[in-house]
Amino acid sequence: MAVTLKDVATLAGVSVKTVSNVVNGYAFVKPDNRRRVEEALAVTGYRPNVGARNLRRGRTGFLALMVPELSIPYFGELAGLVITAAQRRGWSVLIEQTQGTRARERATLDSLGPHLVDGALVHPEALEAGDFPDLANGIPMVMLGEHAVDVPLDRVAIDNVVAARTAVSHLLSLGRRRIAAIGVNPARGTASLRLEGYRAALADAGLSVVDSLLAPAAKYHRAVGAAAMKDLLALKEPPDAVFCFNDLLAVGALRAAAERGLSVPGDIAIVGFDNTEESAFSLPSLTTIAPDKAAIAEAAIELVHGRLTTGAEGDPREVQPPFSLEVRESTVGVRAG
Amino acid sequence: MAVTLKDVATLAGVSVKTVSNVVNGYAFVKPDNRRRVEEALAVTGYRPNVGARNLRRGRTGFLALMVPELSIPYFGELAGLVITAAQRRGWSVLIEQTQGTRARERATLDSLGPHLVDGALVHPEALEAGDFPDLANGIPMVMLGEHAVDVPLDRVAIDNVVAARTAVSHLLSLGRRRIAAIGVNPARGTASLRLEGYRAALADAGLSVVDSLLAPAAKYHRAVGAAAMKDLLALKEPPDAVFCFNDLLAVGALRAAAERGLSVPGDIAIVGFDNTEESAFSLPSLTTIAPDKAAIAEAAIELVHGRLTTGAEGDPREVQPPFSLEVRESTVGVRAG
Repeated sequence: MAVTLKDVATLAGVSVKTVSNVVNGYAFVKPDNRRRVEEALAVTGYRPNVGARNLRRGRTGFLALMVPELSIPYFGELAGLVITAAQRRGWSVLIEQTQGTRARERATLDSLGPHLVDGALVHPEALEAGDFPDLANGIPMVMLGEHAVDVPLDRVAIDNVVAARTAVSHLLSLGRRRIAAIGVNPARGTASLRLEGYRAALADAGLSVVDSLLAPAAKYHRAVGAAAMKDLLALKEPPDAVFCFNDLLAVGALRAAAERGLSVPGDIAIVGFDNTEESAFSLPSLTTIAPDKAAIAEAAIELVHGRLTTGAEGDPREVQPPFSLEVRESTVGVRAG
Repeated sequence: MAVTLKDVATLAGVSVKTVSNVVNGYAFVKPDNRRRVEEALAVTGYRPNVGARNLRRGRTGFLALMVPELSIPYFGELAGLVITAAQRRGWSVLIEQTQGTRARERATLDSLGPHLVDGALVHPEALEAGDFPDLANGIPMVMLGEHAVDVPLDRVAIDNVVAARTAVSHLLSLGRRRIAAIGVNPARGTASLRLEGYRAALADAGLSVVDSLLAPAAKYHRAVGAAAMKDLLALKEPPDAVFCFNDLLAVGALRAAAERGLSVPGDIAIVGFDNTEESAFSLPSLTTIAPDKAAIAEAAIELVHGRLTTGAEGDPREVQPPFSLEVRESTVGVRAG
């Protein structure tokens, strides 16, 4: 039997009208009531009668989410949060994978349109500006991440420059001076911004960039991080710290350091990026930049919702969710228990 | 511009007719040609003109995939493979998350039907037999994993009993005798089967089951594995090996052992289950059961396709994809390079 508004109201201890207000996204609901309704919605798995509602509004009830690969934990975690946030608005989520190639990103964008979805959240890695269809095929489209192309779309991304600068400043504050970067890739927008933050932190400390310490990465996979770290450790003057542009590269770097018999952080400190769940359990646990992934998912869904309800024609908007630096064993060692 | 059949044929070096035969799932295509076409399909991201084709066939062009949580790497990896396999048949995939609760699994099943999707792949953890809608709401439904309810649905799952028995026999062959199990959970079908395999392996070796070595787990998350391992290590007679019912529990167990100052596998050997990508890079790397996830995804898609084309009314079918035991450092130590 389908869960009804009444079931949700009973569980939350509020009126059916209050539940309806929350489900329909009205602003004037007491915070405490909103929280209780959202908990009850989550527990019961309530879904609005999207068939009827969508017919009324001329909508499909679907959103598309385009990501490179779901098997990359950052995207698996983000997709889970997007599905949860979308469900609260009555949307089901179609997921498209592109492997980060331009051909597949273009094919995906071309296939989207109002016949299929009400909106799309896209995380491109290789698209160029001209690849974006005019007016995004007539649907609200939100860009996730800071892919470096200039298209008039709403965007959601943390401040990658400041985040990278924070990570590298942390290494500098621990006395590290020969700091490498793994993940350099001129074709990736986020990589360029993270490199910019790295350069800025070194400049703050009066250090210059050493080219041999900049390790490229075509894919942000564990094996690539391990290979890059192996090369860095073979240098005549190896680094005393590494800033990796994602956690998978960092996990690979951890492994390469261990295989070389080095202690982390004693011999070499390592920082990652993404705060994937794995990073809190690796040995040693990984210091990492933690983007607020739930806030990213929520902001993207609200941007699509806003375009469909009130602001279809406004200028592109940019939302910068917060981030934090999670300081763990890979930079400060095991703390006394 | 949308990719055409002709583009795919040119790239693959075959005729348009051959590409069409592969895309439409006809059997009589030379293996070498099929392989070349499939590679070209993957590279180009070709999608059949599903709008027109679906209209003709009375289909929606969507499949649903119901999983507990995408942030669990096994499900992230499996979902990625399902999307890839579905795309080759021209389907887009809707992903629904249930957190493994019965209420949300029911709500999801209730929401599915031929108005929404052409078929569904479901991985339930808490549903009971009576929760399944009559005739699966009129769409082909394939059950993934061995959830222990008796419903007349097609199923795809590895042989969990034999797989668990293989894992525990490996520990016994290394001379371990006090082997614990982390993940015991009578409500989960796969957990019961893995426990059965564990018991069988011990019986093979003439050992009896020690109740204090059976550690329950409500959720199969890293933190739960760490807590369970901590309890096992506090026993007056702690185990010399642990079989964990998934890789996340094993990663948590690795961490708890390290925090206790124990060496793995010297003091205690650890085996996981799932062969998630993380398991090859943990320190030490994790010996684990590797289900053939690509084969699981492929078989599930082919079952739905078969039901829609030829066998809508036949008896439920069961497919058992292969698995392997990946022997790594957590049981045999670091091998000489």
